[in-house]
Amino acid sequence: MCELLGMSANVPTDICFSFTGLMQRGGGTGPHRDGWGIAFYEGNGLRIFHDPAPSVESRIAQLISEYPIKSCTVISHIRQANVGKVCLENTHPFDRELWGKKWCYAHNGQLSAELFNWPLEHYFPVGTTDSEYAFCWLLDQIRKRFPEPPEITQLTAFIHQCCEQLRTLGVFNLLLSESRHLFTYCTTRLCWITRQSPFGEARLSDCDMAVNFEAVTTPDDIVTVIATDPLTNNETWSRLQTGEMVVFVDGKVLQRLHTAP
Amino acid sequence: MCELLGMSANVPTDICFSFTGLMQRGGGTGPHRDGWGIAFYEGNGLRIFHDPAPSVESRIAQLISEYPIKSCTVISHIRQANVGKVCLENTHPFDRELWGKKWCYAHNGQLSAELFNWPLEHYFPVGTTDSEYAFCWLLDQIRKRFPEPPEITQLTAFIHQCCEQLRTLGVFNLLLSESRHLFTYCTTRLCWITRQSPFGEARLSDCDMAVNFEAVTTPDDIVTVIATDPLTNNETWSRLQTGEMVVFVDGKVLQRLHTAP
Repeated sequence: MCELLGMSANVPTDICFSFTGLMQRGGGTGPHRDGWGIAFYEGNGLRIFHDPAPSVESRIAQLISEYPIKSCTVISHIRQANVGKVCLENTHPFDRELWGKKWCYAHNGQLSAELFNWPLEHYFPVGTTDSEYAFCWLLDQIRKRFPEPPEITQLTAFIHQCCEQLRTLGVFNLLLSESRHLFTYCTTRLCWITRQSPFGEARLSDCDMAVNFEAVTTPDDIVTVIATDPLTNNETWSRLQTGEMVVFVDGKVLQRLHTAP
Repeated sequence: MCELLGMSANVPTDICFSFTGLMQRGGGTGPHRDGWGIAFYEGNGLRIFHDPAPSVESRIAQLISEYPIKSCTVISHIRQANVGKVCLENTHPFDRELWGKKWCYAHNGQLSAELFNWPLEHYFPVGTTDSEYAFCWLLDQIRKRFPEPPEITQLTAFIHQCCEQLRTLGVFNLLLSESRHLFTYCTTRLCWITRQSPFGEARLSDCDMAVNFEAVTTPDDIVTVIATDPLTNNETWSRLQTGEMVVFVDGKVLQRLHTAP
């Protein structure tokens, strides 16, 4: 399985601390040696770093963990390959443009080969992973259903339906964004923590590192971090339920959708 | 005006030397302080680094000039803004997916505002530059004309026609690729040099640096570098004519198309 990391914040925030924890899982404390990637939105712009090399050895990963790129929406992924060989075009996050927005996506899990029979119209995969195929299928559905951008509640409900369809094929844990909204969907493992005033200290589980957020924030900052599993061992993370979608905006929960009982 | 840099090679080659020269023009020897970007193909995968900060001061640019990312097809751009503010979404190169390939594009020049009346169907700009709009229009034309990938000679002739249309709106110097082919088109300034055995020494115009390619190549290597203006001062570069398209593959000229007299 792979590791996902996302962030939604109300002020441009760097993700060095959480990324340092995640990086250890890329061949250090974890078995995820098959590449990694991280995407930062800055306004409508999207900056993605990809590396098919293990993150714990990656010169680019080293840069990211030291160089504070500030962003309100971040999506990151460390890969343990199951479907598709280890190469750049199979490295998450993936991106495509829809409605003049750059959509960015990372997936954790595995979907049955049946997926590759689902027809595509507008978006086609560059690599050979089930993950990228599912992304193309998902954006295809959104584009066909909404030629123009709809209200966010309509959009969320529709994306949730599509995720429920994908979940019939296997494990589908998702991070997805168009810059402002961070859509998260859980089949098996996804959790989040919202940090806001009064801030305290957080201590990484994967290496000996702590940060006192009080010292690096203002009282108005709200920052949510989403991860496959908790990245810190002295804070309480919330877990998404199976079939649940949570949409974050400006670091806050905007919408929660559960599977119909 | 901006600076373009491209490379086509028959073996994965790093571009550290040429990029070091180009970087100096981003606020060093040149006025192009409004961001820069570089795209590397690795197989079908595309890795793009973008930075709205001047390249000569950029930590990421520093990494690229030291860290030998090897690629057969590279497109790079340093920006001096004319249309569109300085921000990530206005930073070249731009990319979109067509036929399951990542297309990548950088433009030097300026097109009249008339361009923004040309209708778009499939691809829409994320930022506000004339350059990205022209890219969306160009890919729209290709997609409508060829729902499936055509023969390369057919494709080249069609892209050349589209470039000729764009040139009616102003200056359009182009670098474009889908990974294997590097399409170049010139209105005013674009030149190239092909380096192959026997290799010699090359000396940068923009800073005190030289490289002996004999020492870092094998006798079978063929590497073409394309740039707005020659990057070295001891080699003879070929200039593209106005209205000319040259397509490179594996470091060699595959096709040259001139404007009909």
